Amino acid sequence: MTETRTLSLAEIEDLSFRALVAAGTSEENARPLAVATAATEADGVASHGLAYIPIYCEHVQCGKVDGQAKPALETPRPGVVRVDAATGFAHSAIDLGFDTLIPAAREQGIAALAITNSYNCGVLGYHTYRLAQAGLVGLGFTNAPASIAPSGGSKPVIGTNPFSIAAPGADGQPALLIDQSASTIAKSEVMKHAREGKAIPVGWALDSDGNPTTDPNVGLKGSMAPSGGYKGVGVALLTEIMAAALTGATLGLHASPFSGTVGGPPKTGQFFIAIDPASTSNGLFSTGMADLVEAIRVQEGAHLPGDGRLSKRLKAHQEGVAVNSATLAKIEGILANANQA
Amino acid sequence: MTETRTLSLAEIEDLSFRALVAAGTSEENARPLAVATAATEADGVASHGLAYIPIYCEHVQCGKVDGQAKPALETPRPGVVRVDAATGFAHSAIDLGFDTLIPAAREQGIAALAITNSYNCGVLGYHTYRLAQAGLVGLGFTNAPASIAPSGGSKPVIGTNPFSIAAPGADGQPALLIDQSASTIAKSEVMKHAREGKAIPVGWALDSDGNPTTDPNVGLKGSMAPSGGYKGVGVALLTEIMAAALTGATLGLHASPFSGTVGGPPKTGQFFIAIDPASTSNGLFSTGMADLVEAIRVQEGAHLPGDGRLSKRLKAHQEGVAVNSATLAKIEGILANANQA
Repeated sequence: MTETRTLSLAEIEDLSFRALVAAGTSEENARPLAVATAATEADGVASHGLAYIPIYCEHVQCGKVDGQAKPALETPRPGVVRVDAATGFAHSAIDLGFDTLIPAAREQGIAALAITNSYNCGVLGYHTYRLAQAGLVGLGFTNAPASIAPSGGSKPVIGTNPFSIAAPGADGQPALLIDQSASTIAKSEVMKHAREGKAIPVGWALDSDGNPTTDPNVGLKGSMAPSGGYKGVGVALLTEIMAAALTGATLGLHASPFSGTVGGPPKTGQFFIAIDPASTSNGLFSTGMADLVEAIRVQEGAHLPGDGRLSKRLKAHQEGVAVNSATLAKIEGILANANQA
Repeated sequence: MTETRTLSLAEIEDLSFRALVAAGTSEENARPLAVATAATEADGVASHGLAYIPIYCEHVQCGKVDGQAKPALETPRPGVVRVDAATGFAHSAIDLGFDTLIPAAREQGIAALAITNSYNCGVLGYHTYRLAQAGLVGLGFTNAPASIAPSGGSKPVIGTNPFSIAAPGADGQPALLIDQSASTIAKSEVMKHAREGKAIPVGWALDSDGNPTTDPNVGLKGSMAPSGGYKGVGVALLTEIMAAALTGATLGLHASPFSGTVGGPPKTGQFFIAIDPASTSNGLFSTGMADLVEAIRVQEGAHLPGDGRLSKRLKAHQEGVAVNSATLAKIEGILANANQA
């Protein structure tokens, strides 16, 4: 059994903030990342919550991310916002961009945010969620170092590249939130099996000739299996075009790894589209969404994307989150070291 | 062996146009559909080419589509174009919308076209292709009568709902074109197996309890299997939100069938997004796309989405297309009947 300690969301945010600042992150950059970390823990996505804080701190210290970066915004067209993340954290770049994107989408009906020179943005659905909270349909794309091969090929060209869509609901919560990668399974799961010396199921990864493998180490040297075969490759390419080609960011093909300390900043990208449903649906959006959601909810056992995170979120605000004690010890170590320095 | 006759693209367009008009379609509505039919045959997508002309004619005559409809356009916001297809053909509604969408995207950087009260738009990639020809990244979504169940459920809620993306290339041809449905296989393939009394492979369709089946008739009463399991459902939901909820069109849940003559107009929707890459990428788009495309092309056996259609298209312009003789006989029958009337 994993030992845990229960923290309130405010405590998770505060701990994250202090660790990031102790590692050399500016307060402006640490705050949005700390807020996102608490929200991610609230949603039950522990893999991308506090567990990432020691990695973020290490990446600030090794220069994979510039903790002091000042993202720069421009609006080249009425519907387009561009942010150069300047090899800093994605979160402060996205925050800065959303401040302009949201009013632009309301005015233009649709607007886009292109972020370049960026970094891993954590849980993509956290960001589209905020667009839905603003009453907008939020679409998001983020690219990653190559780990999926093209259909018929064997050499990785694109990352596990997730997309996300969040549709606004009635009460400030999304009616529906999808956030899914293009691979059958997260690469981190294959890495975990490799660390634990366990075989992986057929269908998770391919060897360097493109054949199925059950050896996680062989899979990590080969490629991740796309979800649904060539259609998963199609989804990964969609995301690569949006998040990298359209933003002028580094292709997954050339990006340095998100994990470890080598290779310098990955300089990958994010692309968000925000749409005001009032402008496109003649007032029919909410009824249609409610009808669609209801048709899924009434089926016994049916899964509505986003419902799992929502129920955890509501509970976490009341009760806090049970956090892995070993992760907390690591973060407290970062703070203790900083105090001694 | 299927008997064929080779027709030029101009002959295919002319034949389609005359048959549609003979069935009661206005010339304004028949022309874009005839042009699309020739282009679809050129791309080698015979299932959605001339073979559909007799169905379109039947649908005009039974009232499933209004051949005389006049689509109506409005621009509620600078970045949004809305077209009410007025239960007419999707193609003339899309044509009308693109005339405003394309300049709006160039001016605003991004613009959207929401089409409601529409009909089956044929090959979705035909439309996004035209946005790429205009130098824009084109995203397209179109919904369809429900045939995919939610994850964990068994009752169809969403259609096989394709999405498409076309990225502009150097020479007026797309650098890359993706056009894929959310199901493992097209529903028409399951229908074909049912007609021919053949079993279907496991993984194509599910029975009405959500279990795998090899009986096409059982599958047609159940649901189509989503590509990649719950992630295919996610893609279908993405498309449903875009093409139906955001446009105010009829959800797949309530739409009348696209095939057969019963149920009246389906009144489904289409949603297109056009993005000017010059506005989002700081001039880096073409280099990034070329780099991505090259990394796929250099791998022996690797498949670049859109390449198959492109090579057929170039050949068809030179040599024409071998068309199924039985289909031609049907269309000539429609014309002969009209001449006698």
